[in-house]
Amino acid sequence: MRYELYYWPSIQGRGEFVRLALEDAGADYVDVARDPKRARFGLDDLLEDRSSDHRPFAPPFLKAGKFVIAQTANILQYLGPHLALALKSETRRLWTHQLQLTVADWVAEVHDVHHPIASALYYEDQKAEAKRRAADFTANRLPKYLGYFEDILKNNPRGRHYLLGARVCYVDLSIFQMIEGLRYAFPRAMARLEPRHPRLVALNDRIAARRRLATYLASPRRIPFNQQGIFRHYPELDK
Amino acid sequence: MRYELYYWPSIQGRGEFVRLALEDAGADYVDVARDPKRARFGLDDLLEDRSSDHRPFAPPFLKAGKFVIAQTANILQYLGPHLALALKSETRRLWTHQLQLTVADWVAEVHDVHHPIASALYYEDQKAEAKRRAADFTANRLPKYLGYFEDILKNNPRGRHYLLGARVCYVDLSIFQMIEGLRYAFPRAMARLEPRHPRLVALNDRIAARRRLATYLASPRRIPFNQQGIFRHYPELDK
Repeated sequence: MRYELYYWPSIQGRGEFVRLALEDAGADYVDVARDPKRARFGLDDLLEDRSSDHRPFAPPFLKAGKFVIAQTANILQYLGPHLALALKSETRRLWTHQLQLTVADWVAEVHDVHHPIASALYYEDQKAEAKRRAADFTANRLPKYLGYFEDILKNNPRGRHYLLGARVCYVDLSIFQMIEGLRYAFPRAMARLEPRHPRLVALNDRIAARRRLATYLASPRRIPFNQQGIFRHYPELDK
Repeated sequence: MRYELYYWPSIQGRGEFVRLALEDAGADYVDVARDPKRARFGLDDLLEDRSSDHRPFAPPFLKAGKFVIAQTANILQYLGPHLALALKSETRRLWTHQLQLTVADWVAEVHDVHHPIASALYYEDQKAEAKRRAADFTANRLPKYLGYFEDILKNNPRGRHYLLGARVCYVDLSIFQMIEGLRYAFPRAMARLEPRHPRLVALNDRIAARRRLATYLASPRRIPFNQQGIFRHYPELDK
């Protein structure tokens, strides 16, 4: 099965959570919008096809054969067992997905720090509001999320190497992405908070060292963090 | 199976999406925080139990026997087939859930209209920012979401009575809740937009007329919309 990932070609964004799973598993996939063979890649076509009964609301979405699936956490829920990055039992599937949905909420909050008023406006047009939101985010929300996942790691009955059970799952890869992104966007806040979350830092190192993932991260396929993505570094938002 | 729903006792909030499914199905459940027999209902206990490996990040959550599950859309994904409000096939399950996750994103945006800076602050402390966010929400985001779901209804190959297939599913109930909530919070914007979305309005009527749901909606179990919930009516946000 060759998967097709549809996402914006110039940012990590939400698509990166899917890319990390595909890369770590060594899956056969095309990042369609970045494939030079695909001049017109069809992302807009699919989003604008108002006659489709399975039209996604927004990217990323994945094609698996004829099946089109959207919503980052939902894509990962689907891919997990296929990529050996999740267990199939219903209770385990739902609990893994629950953690991923909490990551999704966290991602949305990170985005809204620099866009608290409207995604359609420039950052510069909502900078004053962003400063207020950033102060709350770094003081309250960021420690709450980090503390939550640190506790999940601490209380894993199957060991403390991964969030769930004894093996890596797709949520571990997403937590790696969160830590990396937060370090880029909020280096001062993270430098302050990381010592209190040693298990998350260790998980980040463990994931970064995975063979296929390390190859990916060092390759041109890994788009660098930049000021168009979800994680953006504005020093004034990281006091 | 007697389900236990854990959610704040004085608001509809995100818990209401779960209540509607349980009520429509005539399920045996306890709304724990509102049950006079449960003096100390355990919501805080469960949220604060840092030693639990399945601790939810936030309410609502559901207990089904020993199984605890959180995240509104995930709870509905679990309940759907048990309550005959969703089909079990993998592709159908994922597509239904994808729509519910889009509803979840919509709910988060509705909340952030009145709390664009911080959930922990009063509305009055972020009123200026809320006005800016509300203007974008009613002009851009609200029509986008309504238009998306109107198209889904229009393109259902199994008829136009429900979003998916020929029978009601839990997402239909959630769309009813969105329409009701938006009418409460943004009556002017909705009066302007509803004529362009006749299928959503018809779906809303169809759901409201369902026998068990109509009984529920007329009962004291249905908490009225109020200014502590997700849908809040501030006239200055609905110009």
